[in-house]
Amino acid sequence: MFIKNFDELVKSDLHRLALQLVEYGLSVADPYAAVRENLRVLNNKIFVGNAEMSIAGRIHVVGFGKASKRMAEAVYSVLGDRIAGGVVITPSDEGYVGNIMIVRGDHPIPGENTLRSSQLLLDYLIDNVREEDLVIVLISGGGSALFEVPEEGVSLKDVAWISRELMKRGADIFELNAVRKRFSKVKGGKLLRFIRSRKVASLIISDVVGDRLDTIASGPTAPDETTFADVYKILVKYGLWSELGKNMRGIIEKGLSSSLEDTPKPGNPIFNNVVNIIVASNRIVLEAMARRAREAGFNTLILTSMLEGEAREVGRVLASIIKSIDLHSLPIQKPAALLAGGETVVTVRGSGTGGRNQELCLSLAVSIRGMNNAVAICIGSDGIDGVSPAAGAIIDGSMYYEAVSKGLDPLAYLNNNDSYTILSKLSRAIITGYTGTNVNDIFIAIIR
Amino acid sequence: MFIKNFDELVKSDLHRLALQLVEYGLSVADPYAAVRENLRVLNNKIFVGNAEMSIAGRIHVVGFGKASKRMAEAVYSVLGDRIAGGVVITPSDEGYVGNIMIVRGDHPIPGENTLRSSQLLLDYLIDNVREEDLVIVLISGGGSALFEVPEEGVSLKDVAWISRELMKRGADIFELNAVRKRFSKVKGGKLLRFIRSRKVASLIISDVVGDRLDTIASGPTAPDETTFADVYKILVKYGLWSELGKNMRGIIEKGLSSSLEDTPKPGNPIFNNVVNIIVASNRIVLEAMARRAREAGFNTLILTSMLEGEAREVGRVLASIIKSIDLHSLPIQKPAALLAGGETVVTVRGSGTGGRNQELCLSLAVSIRGMNNAVAICIGSDGIDGVSPAAGAIIDGSMYYEAVSKGLDPLAYLNNNDSYTILSKLSRAIITGYTGTNVNDIFIAIIR
Repeated sequence: MFIKNFDELVKSDLHRLALQLVEYGLSVADPYAAVRENLRVLNNKIFVGNAEMSIAGRIHVVGFGKASKRMAEAVYSVLGDRIAGGVVITPSDEGYVGNIMIVRGDHPIPGENTLRSSQLLLDYLIDNVREEDLVIVLISGGGSALFEVPEEGVSLKDVAWISRELMKRGADIFELNAVRKRFSKVKGGKLLRFIRSRKVASLIISDVVGDRLDTIASGPTAPDETTFADVYKILVKYGLWSELGKNMRGIIEKGLSSSLEDTPKPGNPIFNNVVNIIVASNRIVLEAMARRAREAGFNTLILTSMLEGEAREVGRVLASIIKSIDLHSLPIQKPAALLAGGETVVTVRGSGTGGRNQELCLSLAVSIRGMNNAVAICIGSDGIDGVSPAAGAIIDGSMYYEAVSKGLDPLAYLNNNDSYTILSKLSRAIITGYTGTNVNDIFIAIIR
Repeated sequence: MFIKNFDELVKSDLHRLALQLVEYGLSVADPYAAVRENLRVLNNKIFVGNAEMSIAGRIHVVGFGKASKRMAEAVYSVLGDRIAGGVVITPSDEGYVGNIMIVRGDHPIPGENTLRSSQLLLDYLIDNVREEDLVIVLISGGGSALFEVPEEGVSLKDVAWISRELMKRGADIFELNAVRKRFSKVKGGKLLRFIRSRKVASLIISDVVGDRLDTIASGPTAPDETTFADVYKILVKYGLWSELGKNMRGIIEKGLSSSLEDTPKPGNPIFNNVVNIIVASNRIVLEAMARRAREAGFNTLILTSMLEGEAREVGRVLASIIKSIDLHSLPIQKPAALLAGGETVVTVRGSGTGGRNQELCLSLAVSIRGMNNAVAICIGSDGIDGVSPAAGAIIDGSMYYEAVSKGLDPLAYLNNNDSYTILSKLSRAIITGYTGTNVNDIFIAIIR
């Protein structure tokens, strides 16, 4: 059970169902379950998802990310001592899983641990992988910081500086990644160059809205479509070209004048025997929850797994859809389950305790007040919502009046970004603790 | 043609289709067309929607609202001189439509014109309507201010004061209406008490999100579920009970101690021969547009006709659904038309020229930048968007880069609430002028 205070939260059958669906969603997002679901041995063949990987040689396991140890354990539970060895980088664990060495990197800011462990991982691949071997790569959120080897002449400090400046000046994640790939030896598919066999199966847990392979952990085993020319434009656009140190500038200038591919592009034969498979993602979780809700007799609709926006406003939009289902049978008919996922933001103006999921829920509870046939949950799949001890919340149409009758003003708490305080007082805050995975936030509303 | 600068806005086939669908939507919302669509004479019987009204006696037409003159013209075009007479209150017109007298009221603040014209309308009904007669009532947005007769001992000033105070203290439209119905002789179904025949067909254009009959123009011919007890609670809740003048307080106290129904409730026999039919509404328009889009080969989804929230944030949420359709075939597959309606708000922080529809579009254009297969329109159905000359805008995935290449920073314009300025520079602002109707705002996105 992920939800620790399940019983306290069940105020009706509808509450129970919503909580069960979220509990199920979290189990689908669990790194151990997700890897096992996608890695099977049948008749001495390995199947990664639906792809068959022949086992002519040995099997190596490398990985990096917050969920990489649990993923390694899952691989070990399937393949056991068939695994020759490997190196997996985690934020806090050390030791062994079978023959796989577990080492530490730094998160969220890469430092000496990341450098040392990443070099260890590369050295392992260079020293041990033969042409006939299979390399399983385990990738999850945080992987970009936990695994990094900067290009010659560039330091982690240089990379941190350019990342910070780009973010400060409004660059988006795609622009940021395009630049970072140029100053890394492993991002943007370049990790493959250290793997002699090039027979690679990457099992990936996506914490990136939209699940782009070239973006999750900066796509170490995925094709990269960006170029030095793109990066030059980005740096000029944000006024950084002239501020660039000689070392970084030199890399770009060399790249611009070279006819060599700096990162492997789509169609490059290096990918011929590479399988990149997303084993857990926001969308996979939403689709699993929707199947389960349909089995329970509910019409279902997944709005998006790329939800964005100010949490309280997103709550109002979701409320407008919930009310529309209730009053107009649009976009779907009752009984209905409306699902969405992604990652909202909170612009903090108050001094309270809360998080984006709880703030969305609180705003939603205000907007659907009076409805007696709707329950909704919004929760961070990692179990952490902002600066609160909760993962998210479960709300319903009666919560607003219940709060008022207890002398609590929901709008005052909302305006003070104090969602956790009021939701926990009303027994609506969901407590899970850290779940060990991250596929962003999950939203479900049930309307009967 | 409602859209005056149609040709300037057509940048591709997709733009043309989106504009055609919106043009069609506006034609469905047109008061004249909407009334004619719902009023027919067949074999000497009158059909209002699907309801047959026998014509034993004479036909009278009364009405109030910004669209009431056009609605009267439509009734006249169908029934001609069968109409014995009537009184219709408008914001600015005077004269006659056939035998129907057109008079002026005050909008948005009711004053002497509203009082005089409303009394004229009531006197007409009292003096002319016999038991066997049919009364057609034409209701549209603004009707609440254009038609009002306060209860004995209460002035328009009293009503304005209590409305203002309630809004200032955060009361919602339902609370506001509950209070106002207590101080009015005609709101909350009470108009029916002046119609001897009680055979009434109300043709209604809804400008109220959610289309509740008891809310549009304060429901003069609709059942009212609110009571004096509710209103007492509302006034106490907002700290207004003790501030109430003796006259208003007297009405509430008398009502609380009386066992008589103050407004006709659901099930009251007064409604036996009353038909309330919504001839135009946001939902009706969205459904018509969706039908047309389906005929053009697009999968369609109407999210809601009750859209609410801060315009720029609503834009981000809609973008997340558009991107999900494009990348994940969720919630529907391409080619797709995504529709929504309602009314967003803008929290003005800058000093620019714009409106909620254009601000939503500008924010959306930022969020879907780079998509080459999506076009979206958001438009106020009355043709007026905020403080700008435009009704709304049409945007696409290339607008952001087009702006940047012209030295215009979309985010800077967004932050200055200056959506109209940039959208008109980029030939994306839609100009209609006042359309003569109001069914709130219409949104459509087309993804191919």
